[in-house]
This record gives sequence, C-alpha cells and structure tokens, in this order.
Amino acid sequence: MLNKFCRVPLTACTRTLADVAMGRKPADLVIRGAKLVNVCTKELLDGYDVAVSCGRIAAVGDVSASVGEGTTVIDATGKYLAPAFLDGHIHIESSMLTAREYARAVIPHGTAGIYYDPHEICNVLGLDGVRYMMEDAAKTPLKAMMTTPSCVPAVPGFEDTGAKIDAADVAETMTWDGCVGLGEMMNFPGILASAEPTHEIVAATLAAGKTVTGHFSIPDTGAALNAYIAAGVRCCHESTTEMSALEKMRRGMYAMLREGSAWHDLAEVAKAITRHTVDSRYACLISDDTHPHTLIGAGHLDHIVRRAVEEGIDPVTAIQMVTINVAQCFGMDAELGSVAPSKCADMVLLTDLETCKVDEVFIDGELVARGGKMLVTPAPYRYPDAARNTIHLSPVTEKDLRIPAAGTVHVHVLEVIPGRVGSYDRLTEMTAEGGELRADGEHDILKACVFERHHGTGTVGRGFVKGFGIRHGALAQTVAHDAHNLLVIGSNDADMVLAVNTLIECGGGLVAVRDGKVLGLVPLPIAGLMNDISAEEMDARVSALEDAWKDLGCTLPSPFMTMALIPLACLPEIRLTNRGLVDCRTFRFLPLIEEKP
Amino acid sequence: MLNKFCRVPLTACTRTLADVAMGRKPADLVIRGAKLVNVCTKELLDGYDVAVSCGRIAAVGDVSASVGEGTTVIDATGKYLAPAFLDGHIHIESSMLTAREYARAVIPHGTAGIYYDPHEICNVLGLDGVRYMMEDAAKTPLKAMMTTPSCVPAVPGFEDTGAKIDAADVAETMTWDGCVGLGEMMNFPGILASAEPTHEIVAATLAAGKTVTGHFSIPDTGAALNAYIAAGVRCCHESTTEMSALEKMRRGMYAMLREGSAWHDLAEVAKAITRHTVDSRYACLISDDTHPHTLIGAGHLDHIVRRAVEEGIDPVTAIQMVTINVAQCFGMDAELGSVAPSKCADMVLLTDLETCKVDEVFIDGELVARGGKMLVTPAPYRYPDAARNTIHLSPVTEKDLRIPAAGTVHVHVLEVIPGRVGSYDRLTEMTAEGGELRADGEHDILKACVFERHHGTGTVGRGFVKGFGIRHGALAQTVAHDAHNLLVIGSNDADMVLAVNTLIECGGGLVAVRDGKVLGLVPLPIAGLMNDISAEEMDARVSALEDAWKDLGCTLPSPFMTMALIPLACLPEIRLTNRGLVDCRTFRFLPLIEEKP
Repeated sequence: MLNKFCRVPLTACTRTLADVAMGRKPADLVIRGAKLVNVCTKELLDGYDVAVSCGRIAAVGDVSASVGEGTTVIDATGKYLAPAFLDGHIHIESSMLTAREYARAVIPHGTAGIYYDPHEICNVLGLDGVRYMMEDAAKTPLKAMMTTPSCVPAVPGFEDTGAKIDAADVAETMTWDGCVGLGEMMNFPGILASAEPTHEIVAATLAAGKTVTGHFSIPDTGAALNAYIAAGVRCCHESTTEMSALEKMRRGMYAMLREGSAWHDLAEVAKAITRHTVDSRYACLISDDTHPHTLIGAGHLDHIVRRAVEEGIDPVTAIQMVTINVAQCFGMDAELGSVAPSKCADMVLLTDLETCKVDEVFIDGELVARGGKMLVTPAPYRYPDAARNTIHLSPVTEKDLRIPAAGTVHVHVLEVIPGRVGSYDRLTEMTAEGGELRADGEHDILKACVFERHHGTGTVGRGFVKGFGIRHGALAQTVAHDAHNLLVIGSNDADMVLAVNTLIECGGGLVAVRDGKVLGLVPLPIAGLMNDISAEEMDARVSALEDAWKDLGCTLPSPFMTMALIPLACLPEIRLTNRGLVDCRTFRFLPLIEEKP
Repeated sequence: MLNKFCRVPLTACTRTLADVAMGRKPADLVIRGAKLVNVCTKELLDGYDVAVSCGRIAAVGDVSASVGEGTTVIDATGKYLAPAFLDGHIHIESSMLTAREYARAVIPHGTAGIYYDPHEICNVLGLDGVRYMMEDAAKTPLKAMMTTPSCVPAVPGFEDTGAKIDAADVAETMTWDGCVGLGEMMNFPGILASAEPTHEIVAATLAAGKTVTGHFSIPDTGAALNAYIAAGVRCCHESTTEMSALEKMRRGMYAMLREGSAWHDLAEVAKAITRHTVDSRYACLISDDTHPHTLIGAGHLDHIVRRAVEEGIDPVTAIQMVTINVAQCFGMDAELGSVAPSKCADMVLLTDLETCKVDEVFIDGELVARGGKMLVTPAPYRYPDAARNTIHLSPVTEKDLRIPAAGTVHVHVLEVIPGRVGSYDRLTEMTAEGGELRADGEHDILKACVFERHHGTGTVGRGFVKGFGIRHGALAQTVAHDAHNLLVIGSNDADMVLAVNTLIECGGGLVAVRDGKVLGLVPLPIAGLMNDISAEEMDARVSALEDAWKDLGCTLPSPFMTMALIPLACLPEIRLTNRGLVDCRTFRFLPLIEEKP
C-alpha cells in the first residue's frame, strides 16, 4: 500500500536525498551525538548521527559531509534517538477531544502516528463523520491513519444508529488516501459463522491490499481463533491472557498488547514476551482508549513503553513494539517506524531509556515538541454544523420516562460489574406505584432510559440498572456505545428529565444532576462525543464530573465508562438499547417484565 | 501490493477457511505430528498440526475437528514442518535452464517461490523475453515472482544489446500481475550521482508500491550506501564482508546473504549474524546464480540453509531467512512465508533440521515433491520462434577476425583473474605477422572477438585476452554478459571460425573446439541462453564442456563464467564489447593498440 502520510513522497525526493547523503547538498537538519535506538537490528549504537532532508532521513552514520549552509545541527549528546512512536489501535473519541486536541496532547509524548478507528463518530454521522475527523486530523502534524469502522451498527437489528456501514461503503473508503485498513472487526461471531455480509467487508479491504484489524475478545485459542485469523484478520488488541497473546503471535497475528486508561492488560499479556523465548516481531503496544486524565498525567505510548519495561520487557524491544512492528503490521515499514535512510524523519530524543522520557519530537523532520510542550500550533478545524447538531430530540418530560405496570412483577434488572465490561441479568421483584414502576434508590435500583437521538423516531428503551451505588440523583450521557443514543439513569424522574434536557440543550455530553441542580457537565457538542477544548480543559471538566459521581455516592472506577456500555448489545449478559432490553446471550429482545419468572 | 501468486485469492475463500477451521467443512489436507518450525515466533513447537483448504492454511494447532470425509491426513511424526522456501534474488538464466526445468530442479529442494530478475533474456529479447519467461514459469507450481530488469543495457553506450529498458517500460511492467518489483539496480553510480533516468526507473517502481531490489557491490558503508538506500532501494545481495552486511541491516536494508555456485559469500557475511547480537529480521539467504551442477548435487536454498547452520546460524533463524524475512522484504508476508492461518499452504517436511533435509514439499496445499523427486509434471512451454532465432549473424570467415597491424606495437591485453570478477589491463608488446596481430598461445595470449548478434549491425569488437592457460584451440559462447553477443576466444582463427559458426548453427550456446573438431557443445537455442532439457541433462552437457576446457589446458574454476564476463563493461579494469575495448575505470573506449605507451 502506498504511504500517503509523509510530507514529500519518496518518489519526489530520491535525487535530493542522494545529493544530501553524498554531501552535494546540505541537510536541513542533523542530529549529532545521540545513542541510536536501532529498531531494525535491536541495538543501541554510538556514532550514528542522522541527516534529514525533505522531511526524510538522508543518511545515518557519519553524516558530517551533509552539514552545510542552512543546516540546523542539534547536539543530542547524552540522549537516545529513536523512531517516533506509532499507536496501532486507538479511538480518538475516547479522549472526548477533537483530532486536533488529541494530536496536541499525544505528540509531546513522542507519538508521530496513530492507526485510528473512528467508529464512534461513524455511528453518529456515518462516513461524513469519518471525513470530518480526517479533515480535522490532516491539519495537525500527527500522521493520523484511518481504519474504516467495520461494525456500524455494532449489533444490527437491536438499536438505531445514526448511520450504517456496509461492504460498498468500506470499498469506497479503501480508495481514500487517508485510509490504511479496516477498523476492528468486532463482529467475530459473523466471521466465525462465515456470514456473507461480514466476510464481504473483510474482502473489500483485502482486495484493496489494506490491513484488516481485529477484535477477538474471547479467550479461545483453538478453532475460533484459527477461523478468525484465516479470514484475513491481521492483528488483535483484545488479548487479556499471556497465552491468548502468544497463540496469536504463533499464528502470525499481531498481538497488540493494550494498556488503556480503563483496560490494564499489560501486566498479564506482557508475559507472552517475558516468559517465553520468542521473536517479538508480532507484538505491539497500543492504547485503544485513553482518557484526557491519562494523557495529561501519565502520557501516551511513552507511558505504555515505561509500563512494558516495568513488566520486564527490554526497552529496545518495547520501542520496537511501538515503531517498526506496528509499521510492519500495516505494511508501511518501508517508510515508517525506523531511523533509516529514505524513511520519514519521525524521531524522538529520549533523556532516559528505561523510563522512556521524551524530550524532543520530530515529525517529517520538523521539531514539533520539546520538553512536553508543542512547538507548533495546528490550524483550527471547525466541524461543520451537521456535526454540531446531532441531538435530534425534543425536550422530554416525565411522561416519556414512564414504565407502566400493575402489582408486583419480576423485572430483568441490568447489574453492572465494577471495573469490568460485563453485566448480570438480575430478575428482581418490583411493585408498581401509581400504575408504574419507579426507581428504588434505597435498593440501588435506578431507572434507565435510552432515547433515540439520530432520526427523531421517538423510540425509547426503558428499564432498570443496579450496581452504581447511587441513591439520589441522575446521570445522562450521549457517549453510549456504540449507537451513542441519549442514555439517562437516575433515582427520580425529575432529575432524569433535567439531565436529558441539559444535554439536548448543549448538543450532547455528560451530565450529573441532583435535586434539580446540575452538579457536573461535560459538553460534547461535536457529534455528542467530542469537544474542541484542550486536553487540560477536558481533564478539568471530567474531573469535576467524576467528583459529582462520587458526591452522588458512586464508588465505581470510571463510572461514566461503565455507564456508557449499558447499551452495547455485543457484551454479556443483558443490555438496554433505544429499542428495549436485549438478551445478549441469545441475541433476542427480552421483555422488561418477565411473565413466567 | 496484492499477492497474485496463490491458487485462490484470500478474498475468495475466507468463508470456506472459517468453515474448515470451525469444523463445519472437512479440510483437504491435514498434516499431523510434526514439530512446527514457527518462523513468526522463532520457536520449535509440538502439537501444532495444520489443516489446509483452498490451497491455504485454515488452522494451526489442534485441527482434529477439520478432519472429515475426503481429508488427506499425513502423519509426519518425527519430522519438522516449516514454510517452504523463498529465494529473494535469483536469475533463472544462470542455470541455462528454462523456467520449467529450473522449477523442476528446485522444488524438490523445498523452494516454493523465487524473486527472479530475468535480465539476461531481457537484454536479448526485451520485455517480450520477460513475458515468455513468465508464461513458462506460470505453467509450474513454483511461485515465480518477477522483478523487472532495471539496467538493460548494463552500461549504455558501450555495447549493443537486443533491447533497452527505460522508465516507461518499467512503469508498464508494474501493472503486470506477475511483477513484484524492480530487479537489481546495478547502476548504483547513477543512483549516487542522482542521474534522472536512473531515479525515474526507481520512482516508477515506488509509485506502484512495489519493491526496489539492489546491487551495491562496493564496500562503502558511508555516504554512498546511505545515498543508495535513501533512494528507496530495499535490499542488496552484494555484501561480501561482515560489516557491509551488518551496516545494511542497521539502515533497514535487507541484507541478502549470497551463496551461489560461483560466489561463496556466506562464510564471511554470516558473521553479521553470528558475531553480533542482532535482530536478524533484515537478513535473508539467497542464491543469485546457481548452475545445474549445484542444483543436482548440493541443492538450492536447503543447501544454503545448511551452509548457514555450518557457519553458526541457528537453524530456525536460518529458516526465517528463507521464509518470513524474504516475504517481509517484498511486503508479501500477509500471505507468504509462514505456516499460519490464511497463508498459502507452501510447506516443507524436513527429516532433519540441522542439515535441512527436505522430504515432502507442498505448494498451495498440493504435495508436489517427495524424497527429492517431483510428483507433478508441469505442462511444457514452447518458447516462440522469436525466442529461438536470436542469432542474427551470418557465418563468419577468418577475414572477420583479422586485426590489421604493422611492426611491433603495444597492445592492451585483458587479463582475467582466476575465481574473481575483475580483470587487469596489461600493456603488451606484440609483433604483427602478415599485416595482422595474431594470438600467441605460447605466451597465453588468445585472440578475442565479440560479434554483435541481435540486429545484424556487423559490428565486431576485437582484442586479446590472457589468463586462460590455453595454448591451442578456441571457445565461443553466446552467454556473454550482459548483452549476450557472440564471444569467441582462441589460439587460431580456423578453430575460432568453427566455434562461432557452430553456435550460429545451433542458435547459441557454449562450445569448445580444437583442430577443426568440436570437443564440447552446450546448445542454448532459447535466446542463446537456455535450453529446455532437464537439469540432469544440462549438468551432463556442461560437465562434458568443462572436461573440454581442461583438455585445452585451462585450470580456472568455472572458466566459461570467467569468459562470460569479458564483455561486461561495469567491471574493472578493461572489457571487450562488440563496439571495442572499454576502459571501465574511465568509461571511455580504448584503442587496442596504444599509440603512446
């Protein structure tokens, strides 16, 4: 696949690079004196300076002949020079930041490129949303390489999304310069069952010579894993055990070892490398979902490399896992992921190797960040109005929340599990009051409603959840996977109505309410998912909201993440979408009130 | 780049592969009980059986569920199962065999794929010749992946070839399914000098997303090597020292370590791996040029793996160097080079790992060879008449050999060097007899003539050579790099005329003559380079010719190889082409008789 992510195509500058290497023309930039982290040979090397021209590396070694008039010479004695980092699987929307603000947050941590799957915005706005995000990202120095969302909607037939993606859509995106592959194929049941529409989506990607990325979230390392890989899926970031990661690598599948804000897999999956004497070329380190708090505090891939080293992975090996291995996974190693002649001059200078302490960051040969600060200001991108008006829902009233019933009934209550993505189906006796079922804060039972917000269909899914530990108040959010309808939970209808209407008014976001008062609000006016404030501002907003959750009595870690999974019908055991309660074990709708308990 | 070299495109069989992996359909083939040589993780693994369907691997591990009606089950207990081998750089013509016969010779040695540069036939017949060879190869199970000859002619302006290749030709071939890249860019001076036509040829390849293969035959590891790699060249098979191989790997260039019939580099270049603690992913093992005698006796890549192990490279690492590393060099590792689900079922069973003893060979899941014997018979390919009538030259007479002169003169005599590719320019006093200069067998000076044989221009280059140790007789051949004009050397004009006319009559080849008698003849009627006899027959013919050389008194190793280099004007110090004597140090024509010695 042709790389479209370097400033100058290699075809346009081979003669200049040869001129610079031969000393006939001066380099734009020379970095001297650093110890080279050579990811091609897994060596630490002294005496390998680097000359840059046209945004690419012209020479590595003794490059003194390339220094001339106009050459910027950086003395990096005492530092380590490594390729800048590539994240093999991320969702920008998880940060709730726009691509611009995300780029500004991660570049100072050494990230030069991301392989991102914009499936959240795609569920809301379809390929238009994907295009907007690509336009946004294109204004930044970050090489934002798009993988087309493969599963929109996540579970067809059980919810209403803003858009649908089929094989023809995927085929269209494969002609786009910014597209490098297919986003995580979450519909592994469709792959395993040889479902034609699912395989057609994969085929459209393979036919374009691009990479199919995976999501194989079951522990199987036998028939199912084989079938999934045999179907052409090249990588997977869902391993949570040592052996599932290793068995993927043994089958030529890139095991993308994840250390996200909410999912801390590395302590376990690093063992695939540390407990076995293996060639680690099929292992990568990725973030998947990173919250602004992590970006501000811990960092991005620098943090994950640090974590990998803490888990016993050699630092140079860990750096291979965020550079050349990632580039090889996507067939882009001819131009990305190493400090070598002809490659894009995407490089970092580290002041410490073990702790992966990033100082300077170069992208396409330009110094874009130093000491944790961006040195360049990407032009702002204004998401079009279509992306800023995505809550197609009129203000609601308590009537819209009503769940009619009579007498004592058995209700399927969705119980969340702290820190995990699953849920339990708890058949619970409830007694109607005034002809309806109400929340029961005393017994940790909250009412939950999912309002379809894309097409104005007026559909509302209603039910009950438990496990949040909230006795009084309401929470609402338009980040509600994957359809991102408007989800509200609460102990009383009045607070729930206020929460919903607050979000309608601000175009989406996250809100916490108690006694008619908004305790915390994170407006996400872009697709109901993102805001173009900085990571720092976003972090402050989200922290305030988290404080509100705690005020309300919730002790869950990342409670709004757990809440956001309530509608995600591909997770066990039951889920609530705008169409109603779904039994995710049998993939059937479930009546809220069980007639034959 | 899309792989076109597997029997069934992956896009057409992902559902079937999933069915087989899941046990819903029976596999075509299951191999049980072998120890898996896992090139993805560099491990030897027990308990990894393999199920095959549609010519691809459906499952690896416990594949018992895939055994059903019609499944061929092979018990390979006690053997090693590895990916079949890929040769990253070869010239079929060096074997003097057609592609069919070459394939029949190498497949039983475990070779499933070759990246071949047909630059000999291309010098004679242009892209038509390349197409013929592709058609020939396509009838065999061998995955013959063509790299377009980049340097035809080798040294423009100094000889007449049958054809020329420019950037437009290269661009055309890049649209061919059978083309995977650019053949060895021998014109490294053109790359280093930023010559536009040379860089245009590279750019045409890069623009198609295909691989530029290299030929960097100077020991430089500084500015020149950087310039060459910066220009987009991805691999090189010309390293002859430990450090030149290692420095290429350190710059992300695939070091293709060569062990050909005539060039035995491995003892030295293997040290790049054995003396350094390096990741060897950028190292490959290749053959470049293999004679029928080597193919019959020692083998192909199995022999080179064996040699690598002898040099201290771990066997699994060595096998990586003829499988996955090669596939990664050409960006084809998604489908070739490993035993993993979705990959082409190109596999070998070895009875011994250290000695790389190949028993069964599978290509696209079909058992094609066992115990050193082909089990399938490729359909014959008849090269068209245009390829069989390439000696456009009328019978010659002694007059055509005449070198007029008077008195005693100083002559530039080309002295060959035993076992090396270079030559010396020896200014030698010679005295004319009967108005001409004649060979002087007593003093080891033979007359040499190069007859242009492509276009009937009638040009003849005439001169003298020494170093062959032949006192009486003549030798002629149409294998005469790279233009492959008709070259004759001899002690007397009568034998030389017979040698030339013998080759004209049989359409080209190699011949030895003494006293009006043909002592040995290898007819090469296809382009004057190849014959469609078997490798065994060719070996016998060539052996007989070598005996004739010895009879004539020549003690050089591979004397006809040394002779074949006499016209190759890119080698030092002087060369004789059909246009005359060339000074290869200054790239100027040299008068045979030096006026101012």
